[in-house]
Amino acid sequence: GIRTPKDIQTFKRTNKKIYNELMKIRNRLERHYKDMQDFEFTIQEGKLYMLQTRTGKRTAQAAVKIAVDMCKENLITQKTAIERVEPEQIDRLLHPVFDPKEEKKKEPIAKGLPASPGAAYGEVVFTAEEAERRAKEGRDVILCRIETSPEDIGGMNVANGIVTSRGGMTSHAAVVARGMGKCCVVGAGQLEIDYKKKRFKVGSKTVNEGDWISINGHNGNVYMGRLSTVEPSLSGDFATLMKWADRFRRLGVRANADTPYDAEVAVKFGAEGIGLCRTEHMFFQGKRINLFREMILAEDAEGRRRALKKLLPIQRKDFEGIFKALKGRPCTIRLLDPPLHEFLPHDKTGQKEMSRLLGIPVSKIKNKVESLKEINPMLGHRGCRLGLIYPEISRMQVRAIIEAAIKVRKKGVKVLPEIMIPLVGHYKELKIAREEAEEVIQDIFKKEKTKIDYKIGTMIEIPRAAITDDEIARFADFFSFGTNDLTQMGCGFSRDDAGKFLPDYVKMGIYSNDPFQVLDQDGIGRLIKQAVELGRKSKKDIKFGICGEHGGEPKSVEFCHKVGLTYVSCSPFRVPIARLAAAQAAIKDKF
Amino acid sequence: GIRTPKDIQTFKRTNKKIYNELMKIRNRLERHYKDMQDFEFTIQEGKLYMLQTRTGKRTAQAAVKIAVDMCKENLITQKTAIERVEPEQIDRLLHPVFDPKEEKKKEPIAKGLPASPGAAYGEVVFTAEEAERRAKEGRDVILCRIETSPEDIGGMNVANGIVTSRGGMTSHAAVVARGMGKCCVVGAGQLEIDYKKKRFKVGSKTVNEGDWISINGHNGNVYMGRLSTVEPSLSGDFATLMKWADRFRRLGVRANADTPYDAEVAVKFGAEGIGLCRTEHMFFQGKRINLFREMILAEDAEGRRRALKKLLPIQRKDFEGIFKALKGRPCTIRLLDPPLHEFLPHDKTGQKEMSRLLGIPVSKIKNKVESLKEINPMLGHRGCRLGLIYPEISRMQVRAIIEAAIKVRKKGVKVLPEIMIPLVGHYKELKIAREEAEEVIQDIFKKEKTKIDYKIGTMIEIPRAAITDDEIARFADFFSFGTNDLTQMGCGFSRDDAGKFLPDYVKMGIYSNDPFQVLDQDGIGRLIKQAVELGRKSKKDIKFGICGEHGGEPKSVEFCHKVGLTYVSCSPFRVPIARLAAAQAAIKDKF
Ligand SMILES: [Mg+2]
Ligand SMILES: [Mg+2]
Repeated sequence: GIRTPKDIQTFKRTNKKIYNELMKIRNRLERHYKDMQDFEFTIQEGKLYMLQTRTGKRTAQAAVKIAVDMCKENLITQKTAIERVEPEQIDRLLHPVFDPKEEKKKEPIAKGLPASPGAAYGEVVFTAEEAERRAKEGRDVILCRIETSPEDIGGMNVANGIVTSRGGMTSHAAVVARGMGKCCVVGAGQLEIDYKKKRFKVGSKTVNEGDWISINGHNGNVYMGRLSTVEPSLSGDFATLMKWADRFRRLGVRANADTPYDAEVAVKFGAEGIGLCRTEHMFFQGKRINLFREMILAEDAEGRRRALKKLLPIQRKDFEGIFKALKGRPCTIRLLDPPLHEFLPHDKTGQKEMSRLLGIPVSKIKNKVESLKEINPMLGHRGCRLGLIYPEISRMQVRAIIEAAIKVRKKGVKVLPEIMIPLVGHYKELKIAREEAEEVIQDIFKKEKTKIDYKIGTMIEIPRAAITDDEIARFADFFSFGTNDLTQMGCGFSRDDAGKFLPDYVKMGIYSNDPFQVLDQDGIGRLIKQAVELGRKSKKDIKFGICGEHGGEPKSVEFCHKVGLTYVSCSPFRVPIARLAAAQAAIKDKF
Repeated sequence: GIRTPKDIQTFKRTNKKIYNELMKIRNRLERHYKDMQDFEFTIQEGKLYMLQTRTGKRTAQAAVKIAVDMCKENLITQKTAIERVEPEQIDRLLHPVFDPKEEKKKEPIAKGLPASPGAAYGEVVFTAEEAERRAKEGRDVILCRIETSPEDIGGMNVANGIVTSRGGMTSHAAVVARGMGKCCVVGAGQLEIDYKKKRFKVGSKTVNEGDWISINGHNGNVYMGRLSTVEPSLSGDFATLMKWADRFRRLGVRANADTPYDAEVAVKFGAEGIGLCRTEHMFFQGKRINLFREMILAEDAEGRRRALKKLLPIQRKDFEGIFKALKGRPCTIRLLDPPLHEFLPHDKTGQKEMSRLLGIPVSKIKNKVESLKEINPMLGHRGCRLGLIYPEISRMQVRAIIEAAIKVRKKGVKVLPEIMIPLVGHYKELKIAREEAEEVIQDIFKKEKTKIDYKIGTMIEIPRAAITDDEIARFADFFSFGTNDLTQMGCGFSRDDAGKFLPDYVKMGIYSNDPFQVLDQDGIGRLIKQAVELGRKSKKDIKFGICGEHGGEPKSVEFCHKVGLTYVSCSPFRVPIARLAAAQAAIKDKF
C-alpha cells in the first residue's frame, strides 16, 4: 500500500527507526479497514505524523481478486466483498483490451471520446455496405464515419469497431455501439474524412480504405496498424463474485437484445431473459429494408399486406433464433417503434438506388419522404400510433412472434413471449392494440391446434402513461419504463439536440449528471415512483421493468431497487454491472 | 316554439280541436321548462301523443335576449339566465358578420375551415411585406398564403383577415389568428396560389393581387368582391348578462395580449389583466427583426449586448404602451421563448436580403442557420434555456420591463409587472434566472431611486415542472400552466405533426376531443390537479393561472374552476366566453 516505493526504500536506509514505526502503523490500518490503504504522512522534528488514510486505488482485476481472496481467507464477508468492487469498474473486464506493453510503445494518431469500451482492429471502411461486403468474406473491419445514422446499423453490426469524427457520448454511434457492446470511439475531430476519395487525413498522414487501424474504446485512442488484443475472462474470481452477487440481489436483470447472437451473449453474461427486443433493427438489415420500403410506399392496406406477407417468414425466423437462444427465458418483444420516414433514404443517391431496386419512380419516393416529414419526429407518428393507423403491421409482427414461439416449443424448447406495445399514452390505445393482437393469436391457436403462454404489456415512456397507469394496468400484463423517452418528454429535452445546452446545465449544477446517462431521480424518478404505486394500486402484482439505457447504470439500478421494480434490462455487456449494482443496493437496503 | 309554422297553419284549419289541445300543452311545457321548447308529436286515431320536448335552438343573439328578458320579467333568476346561454355560442356576438341578406345571394368561390370567427374583406396580397405596405397606406388587405410562418406575423397583424390553402384548425395561421381575434379561413384547398405570378386560380377563375375578396371566419366561405359587414355590439343585453356572470364567477379571467392595442381590446372585453404577453412577437415586427438577427449572429456576448442595447428602448416602449392600456391591472410578461432559429430566414432569398441589410456574408448566415438547426425544436434550445445560456438577453428584457413600469408609474398610472420565466423544468433554472433578474432590478431601483412592486414566476409547461412544483414554488411568486406545451410533452404529441394521426384517434374514440382544443382532463388534467395540490403544499397562497389556448374553451374553463386555479387567460376575443363559462362553473358547483 505505498505509492512511491523507490523513495520508501531510500527512507528505509536513512531513517530505519521511523520506517519501522510506519510499517507497524500500516499493518494496523490495513487490519482495521480490512483493505489495502493509501496513506499520507509527514515527519517533523524526528516525529512521524499520519495525515490521511484511504482505501487504495486498484485496477478492476485487482479489485475483484483482492475482494474474493479476502473473503476466502475469512477476512471479510461475501457482502463486504461485493461492496468492495465498483460496478462501473468491471466494465473493463467484460471487453477485450490491447496488450498493455504493445500499446505503450505506440503513438496514437488521433484521440476521440471512449464511447463504448473494448479494443478492436481491422481494415478501415467508410460505408456500411463496404463493411458488410468485407465482413462476409471474413475480414476484420473498422467502420469509419463522420456520423452514423440508422441506415448504418447493418455495417456497425458486422464491424469490429466504429470510429466517428463527430458526435458526443450520446450520439447515434455511441448509443448504438454501447447497446451492441461494440468498441467505439466518437468525436475524433482530427480525422478529416473524405467519403468520395475513400480515405481520411490526420495531420500529414493519409489512411486509405483497406489500411489497418486499431481503436481503443477504453481511452479513445486511434492507432495505425494492428495491435494485439487480450480477451476478457468471465471465469475464476469474476465468476465467483457474480455468483455471490446473484445470491443477494432481489432485482431481476435482463438484457436488451435484438438478434439470436445478442441473446446468446446476454445469457452468457447472466441475463434472466430479454427485457427489450427491438424489432425495427431487423428491418434495417440487408434486403429486408427493401421489403419494408415496399410496404411504406404501398398505395393502400392491401398493398401493405402484400409486402408484409413477404416480411413475415423473415421476421418469424429471427424470433425462432432468439427463442432458441433463450431456452425458456422470457422475451419482451417490442412492436415497431420508429417513425416510417427513418426507413426511407433522404438523399438523392439513396432515392435513385431505391427506385432502381423497387421499380418505383423517384418522384413517388420523394413525395413519400416529403409527406412523412415531421417537425418534431420524437413526438410524431411512431410507436403504437403506427400500429393503430396501420393495424396490418402489428398483425404481421404478432403473427411472426407467436408462430415462431409455437414452432420452437414444438421442438421441445420452452418459450415465453411477451409482446410489448410501445409509446402508449392512453389506456384506449392499449385496449385496441391488445384486442387486435388477441384476435391474431386466437386465430393462430385455432389453426395450429395448440396454445402457448404469452403476455401483452406496454412501455411507460410517455408522461401521460405514467400519470394514468392505473387505467392502463387494466389492459396490461406487464409494464416497462422506457426511461430514454420518459426523460425526453418528461424533461422536455430532445436527446438529439440537448448537446447544445445540457453540458452547460451540468456545469452550472442544474442537473448533477446528464439525465440521459444517469436517471434524474428527483424528477423522472419521482414520476416513476408514483407510477409504480399507482399501477400496483390498480393491479397488485403487475411487473415493472425498465429498459432505457439507465438499466445498466449503477446509480440508476440502485434507484430501481429502491422503488421496487421487478427487473432492469440493459445491453448484454452491462448485465454483470447491473447484477453487481443490484446486489449492492440490496445489501445497502438491509443495513 | 313550433318548427314548421306553415303545416301548423294548415293543421289549425283542418283539425281545430287537436290544435287547441296542442297549444295548451305547449304553454304548459314552456311554463314548466321556463324556456322556448321544440317538441314532437303524433296523432293516432284522433288522439294527440306528445313524443319529445327539448329546449329550442336559437341564434346567439336571441339566446342572450330571451335569457335577459325572462330574468327581467322575474320568470327566471340571474343564475338561470346565465345557464341558458352557451358560452361557445356568444363567440359569434364578438366578431363582425356579413350582412346575412347580402351573403345569401353570393356564391362562394371556395370553402375552407372556419379557423377564427369574423367577417373581413380587402385587397388580396400574397406576402406579409405587401400586406404591411398597403396597410400603411390605409388600405384593407386580406393576406393569402399557402401556409403562414412566424415571419408573417407582421403582415397577419395588419391584415383584415387571413386565408390559407393548406393547414388545419391547429395550423400556424389558425392558432395565431385566433390569438389575434382575427378572421381566418384555413385549408381552402381549391385555391391554387402562385406566389411568383401574384395570383390564385380557383376553378376557371383567376384572382390577382389587389383584387377584392371577402372571407367568412364563421363558416369558412371565400367570396369574390366586397360584402358589407355588421359590427358586434357589446352593450345592451350582452353587457347585462356579462355583468351578472361576473357576479357569480370565482375564477379570474385575463387575456393573452402582446401589444398595447391587444391590451386595450382585452380590457374592453372585461379582462382583469394580462396573463400572457409574448415578448418575441415584438421581435418579428418591422425593423426589429434585423436588430434581433444581428444579436443572433454576434460572435460573442459583447456583440450580443451591443445589438440588445439597440433593442432595449424599442422593447421598453412596447411595455410602456401596454402598462398604460392596463391602468394598473397585472401584466404577466413572458421572457423570450422560441428557439433562435425561428428568427432567421431559411430560404436563399431571405438570407441574401438579410446579408444585404446587415452587411454579413451569406455564408455566415447559412452556417448559423445550419448550426442552430434542431431535430426536435419543440424539445430543444428555447425558453429559459436561452436566457440561462445567453443571460444578456433576459437581462435586457427584464430591464425593459422594469424601466417601462417605473416610467409609466411616474406618470401617475399604477403598474403591476409579473415577469414569467418560460419552460422551467428544474427549480434550479428558476433560481438562477431569478437571481439574474433581481440583480438587474435592484440596479435599476438604485439608479432611479425608486421601487415598484413586481413578481417573478414561471410557467408549468414541462411535465417535470408539474411533478416537482413544490420545489419550484420556493422560487416563484406565481405559476401559470402552459397547457399547449404541457399537452405536447405530456401526451407526446407534436402539435405541428399530430394532424397525421390525431383526427383518426378522435374518430376511434381514443381521445374524445383534440387535446389541443379541449383540455385532456383525464391525463393532462390529472397532472394539473396534482401540481396544484403539490405546489400549494409548499406555498399555501401561490397563484395558479393557465395561459394555453384552453383558457378560453368552456369545458376547460370549468375544469380550471374545479381544480381551484386562480385565473384563466385567453385571447381577448374569448374573454367574455371565459367569463360566462366561469360563472356557469361556479353556479354548477354550488348546487
Ligand atoms: Mg421509446
Ligand atoms: Mg410554451
